[in-house]
Amino acid sequence: MLNVALIGYGYWGPNIARNLFELEGFDLKYICDKNPHRLEIAGKKHPTCKLLSNPLECLRDDSIHAVVIATPIFSHFDLTKLVLENKKHVLVEKPLASNSIQARELCALAEKNGRVLMVDHTFLYTGAVEKIHSLIQSGEMGNILYIDSVRINLGLFQQDTNVIWDLAPHDISIFNYILGKRPTQISAVGAAHLLSQENIAYLTMLFDDSTMAHVHINWMSPVKVRSMIVGGSKKMVIYDDVQSNEKLKIYDTGAQKIENPYDVLVQYRTGDVLVPKLDTTEALKKELQEFKAAIVKGESTRSSGYFATNIIDIIEAAELSIRQDSAYIKVTYGNKK
Amino acid sequence: MLNVALIGYGYWGPNIARNLFELEGFDLKYICDKNPHRLEIAGKKHPTCKLLSNPLECLRDDSIHAVVIATPIFSHFDLTKLVLENKKHVLVEKPLASNSIQARELCALAEKNGRVLMVDHTFLYTGAVEKIHSLIQSGEMGNILYIDSVRINLGLFQQDTNVIWDLAPHDISIFNYILGKRPTQISAVGAAHLLSQENIAYLTMLFDDSTMAHVHINWMSPVKVRSMIVGGSKKMVIYDDVQSNEKLKIYDTGAQKIENPYDVLVQYRTGDVLVPKLDTTEALKKELQEFKAAIVKGESTRSSGYFATNIIDIIEAAELSIRQDSAYIKVTYGNKK
Amino acid sequence: MLNVALIGYGYWGPNIARNLFELEGFDLKYICDKNPHRLEIAGKKHPTCKLLSNPLECLRDDSIHAVVIATPIFSHFDLTKLVLENKKHVLVEKPLASNSIQARELCALAEKNGRVLMVDHTFLYTGAVEKIHSLIQSGEMGNILYIDSVRINLGLFQQDTNVIWDLAPHDISIFNYILGKRPTQISAVGAAHLLSQENIAYLTMLFDDSTMAHVHINWMSPVKVRSMIVGGSKKMVIYDDVQSNEKLKIYDTGAQKIENPYDVLVQYRTGDVLVPKLDTTEALKKELQEFKAAIVKGESTRSSGYFATNIIDIIEAAELSIRQDSAYIKVTYGNKK
Amino acid sequence: MLNVALIGYGYWGPNIARNLFELEGFDLKYICDKNPHRLEIAGKKHPTCKLLSNPLECLRDDSIHAVVIATPIFSHFDLTKLVLENKKHVLVEKPLASNSIQARELCALAEKNGRVLMVDHTFLYTGAVEKIHSLIQSGEMGNILYIDSVRINLGLFQQDTNVIWDLAPHDISIFNYILGKRPTQISAVGAAHLLSQENIAYLTMLFDDSTMAHVHINWMSPVKVRSMIVGGSKKMVIYDDVQSNEKLKIYDTGAQKIENPYDVLVQYRTGDVLVPKLDTTEALKKELQEFKAAIVKGESTRSSGYFATNIIDIIEAAELSIRQDSAYIKVTYGNKK
Repeated sequence: MLNVALIGYGYWGPNIARNLFELEGFDLKYICDKNPHRLEIAGKKHPTCKLLSNPLECLRDDSIHAVVIATPIFSHFDLTKLVLENKKHVLVEKPLASNSIQARELCALAEKNGRVLMVDHTFLYTGAVEKIHSLIQSGEMGNILYIDSVRINLGLFQQDTNVIWDLAPHDISIFNYILGKRPTQISAVGAAHLLSQENIAYLTMLFDDSTMAHVHINWMSPVKVRSMIVGGSKKMVIYDDVQSNEKLKIYDTGAQKIENPYDVLVQYRTGDVLVPKLDTTEALKKELQEFKAAIVKGESTRSSGYFATNIIDIIEAAELSIRQDSAYIKVTYGNKK
Repeated sequence: MLNVALIGYGYWGPNIARNLFELEGFDLKYICDKNPHRLEIAGKKHPTCKLLSNPLECLRDDSIHAVVIATPIFSHFDLTKLVLENKKHVLVEKPLASNSIQARELCALAEKNGRVLMVDHTFLYTGAVEKIHSLIQSGEMGNILYIDSVRINLGLFQQDTNVIWDLAPHDISIFNYILGKRPTQISAVGAAHLLSQENIAYLTMLFDDSTMAHVHINWMSPVKVRSMIVGGSKKMVIYDDVQSNEKLKIYDTGAQKIENPYDVLVQYRTGDVLVPKLDTTEALKKELQEFKAAIVKGESTRSSGYFATNIIDIIEAAELSIRQDSAYIKVTYGNKK
Repeated sequence: MLNVALIGYGYWGPNIARNLFELEGFDLKYICDKNPHRLEIAGKKHPTCKLLSNPLECLRDDSIHAVVIATPIFSHFDLTKLVLENKKHVLVEKPLASNSIQARELCALAEKNGRVLMVDHTFLYTGAVEKIHSLIQSGEMGNILYIDSVRINLGLFQQDTNVIWDLAPHDISIFNYILGKRPTQISAVGAAHLLSQENIAYLTMLFDDSTMAHVHINWMSPVKVRSMIVGGSKKMVIYDDVQSNEKLKIYDTGAQKIENPYDVLVQYRTGDVLVPKLDTTEALKKELQEFKAAIVKGESTRSSGYFATNIIDIIEAAELSIRQDSAYIKVTYGNKK
Repeated sequence: MLNVALIGYGYWGPNIARNLFELEGFDLKYICDKNPHRLEIAGKKHPTCKLLSNPLECLRDDSIHAVVIATPIFSHFDLTKLVLENKKHVLVEKPLASNSIQARELCALAEKNGRVLMVDHTFLYTGAVEKIHSLIQSGEMGNILYIDSVRINLGLFQQDTNVIWDLAPHDISIFNYILGKRPTQISAVGAAHLLSQENIAYLTMLFDDSTMAHVHINWMSPVKVRSMIVGGSKKMVIYDDVQSNEKLKIYDTGAQKIENPYDVLVQYRTGDVLVPKLDTTEALKKELQEFKAAIVKGESTRSSGYFATNIIDIIEAAELSIRQDSAYIKVTYGNKK
């Protein structure tokens, strides 16, 4: 049984608490939040947990094995560092930290102290993303030529972040996971219409082998769109996350170059469309199970500190591209992989 | 009565012929095509027209006032030049020419010879685009913050052109018309997966006053999408051209900055959505009527040679951006307006 | 402050408990359920409530003013009767009882004891239904010619009821509320494919003034559909409850008879479509507020015992029609209105 | 080579003429229409055809093998009879005649004179209906439990017919074809809101083995819907004819009765959804090819005079049901099959 503490009981925290409560193998001992009102709500829902306004007490409790952090971005680094220094395993909200130097410091600390550092990129654990991952990795889709993602809605403007830090980690984490690699270059454009930080942006990433991935992220769209096209040479997939059912469509569609002595032609193939039944287990539940397996059995996780650090390297390169006339920037990674 | 000749009876020519036949004020005298099979089909549908494989005969016929050209891109310049040299008014398929030098030469020739030069940017004459134009120009939408357009499908790969020349003129012509101005800078990314020319591209354009317009054009999408979001500070519009009805939705939605001594906030407003009844007259018909009015009454047209030349300047800048690491390029226009 | 007890903590009970907890003016004192597991869950969420497996204790508590019943259909009559005999106000799940004789007995008892009897027809309190009600009652839609409703999905087969008792009360309650009257005749067809009770049925109701209302209810549809067309002589409405936004569309569409000496013609009018912004307050919350106003201020409710009894009269007539070769049956109401 | 005459060049005639022109094996010799304006249009499109205002001339022409009739309903009987009396094969628009006595007379006459009598139920030849037919006939869908069809739009009110005669033949022809049988009973409800004939109706048909089929037909819907659910015990299909692509969805969904000593349960199965690639050949083209094969090779057709007569028997029973309080009516067929 893993004894756990949760720090942060705001928008996402209650989902984590509920899952920790329901899952075998976890015992949620503490819930911490600076806001007394949130703590009161937590107490009503989880009367057996100890409630703390200051997390230090639970960090000093030797019986606690792991901590989950669901606080605002700016606090991720300090809290995660504190948890790791106290030799506890940690799962922290995305993005891991506010910049790549901090992120790398946390990875190194986790490694040094022999503790699991995992970051909550929840989308990687959805049935839809798992299915796309397996379609690509099995070779069924052929070479992935492009990915086009749109993640727009009437979003909450946030003063301490921009639309890129807010939304792009979702898309980039999905890209890197399903492709099994990370981009080498990125070009970004953006605009700030109301505040000084961008509320609309477009990112284009190149992967070594000619896969191009593009994201449209936007806080000012009148409608909510969450859709992704993955174009393979053999099959193509459309993933529409706004649908409650039929989120994924697999098109038996491809294009092929035909060369003959006289001409070069492109030939299309269109066939059936399959809407596969997906695993509908709650993503967060699967993620917490992976966290447990990483702690208990030392298994690897799809959303490690290194994986999350790559994403921050990419976002920093995107912001650099915006400052440099949107030209392609080579992404410099701190990690080997 | 305007006596007219049509050069080119391929994919689009039959629609032009049908409209010239049905409209008051036009008398379609000649249909020309190099392909005897196409000419035979034209003859069956329009038995009263003279059929020509070589257009020279109709150009020398003094009774012909105007010529419509619907041939492949590479022939636009030579044919249009010939028509203007023969002192006839001309309406030519988009794009006007294969490069901006040729386009400007045609504009100058038309002006010198006092003839109408008009380019077939059909979308400008649709009920949907006319409605967006009037919503913007009346100020009802407020400042236009961004336009996002997606024009993708399983398209025909063409050996003598790329996806930018093929599809982007539609979007750029719509942007320039509805905004009443032209972009100052452009950044473009693209990829060529099968042939040497691009089959997917993303263009981002900046207009002086901070409007940003972005286009996704793609010949390799498993589904056909033709959608555009126009984000204004007071209202937003979604234009979905794949719908047979309800193509336009006007969202009474906006975002506003609220400043007070302590804080800067962004406040949303959401309200009703209106799906306006649109003019469903065939766009090509309205365009041909404008062509007639330009010839007969000297009225101005929304799709003049100069308007079309701007679009070619923009496309050339987009291609330059791709060659220069996708950095923003200042668009150099040959025309004052 | 109204002291309240809740009987039944199954599928719907937790929503009632949550609202009673959050709303001003209610104090939820007891939660009763025969199932110890459900009671345990209730206790975790509402640790301040007394938990009972037998509701008798709370009925004998003089400090309790009102009881909400959310138990299976078969128990509605006995429990509601008991509550009213104990002189408490009552809100009970739909349908009010298993037959019209029982329903009328409860109405009479409530009247005799001077207590509020209200039935939980939640749809009447949704923003969409309220909007349709006001569009019809204001005369904006003209005469209502027909209503067509489809309520189908892969539903739970229930052994003690059929698809008509399970789903039709939703539609009939909406019809009667928005039209402000009740049907005079009903014809029904149905089929039982797996068990002995109907899993698919179609009901057609006639209202005095020629309004026809039709419902398709089905437990065996591969997709979930919840849509209603209301056809008025001046305007028409489509209500699609599966949409998360834009549930209502108002079509400025009508048909009109044109008589002249030589001919009778029907002329159509089509115009804009409006998607009105709707009140998004939770329906159950508004219903509970109405319950409170009925108790405290003696205000009338849209979902009274009499209103609910009419619906049972209609369902009984539908079942009679099925047994009589689906011929139209005159509905016999026990209530004047 | 079959020499053919076409009688009727109104709404549908031009499509027939175009296909007869393009198909191998047909030579369209005559086009007849009472309206000189329509005849003029026909002459422009088909300058090689003889144009007639009176069809008698072509009926007396011995070189003519077959006649296609595309005139208003009221003229079907007289014209078809005349054609058969002149010993020519005939394909006539649906419905075959204005009543079942006439329809049977035509069938008998065709048989007596050894000529093909075929009726234009075009939907039977669409890729979607052919696919459903093969899914049912192969047993892949299991027992067909129900079919639910909706065919509604803002339709043209017609003075000489009602919505049942106008639209229901489409649905009934599809039901009978895909099921390979005909209904034994029918119940119908309808309403006439503007003229004396019905503009909205609902038909329910029972087939011997418990398949129930229901149709909603309506000339006064603000939106166009053409959708059909076919519910099988093993698989279910949704056919949405308004979609330009992805018209058919096959749901691997079923319900099954589980009996054990203590209980009877219904268990659901849900799985993948398949959107099959469909034959997109124009339906009318395939129908005319079948007409040719019936004439030349004596092959049977899916849309014979007998097949069409059954449909008229069913419509007459529907109208009888409306006059008899909508009770189920046994359909009396004149044909054995």
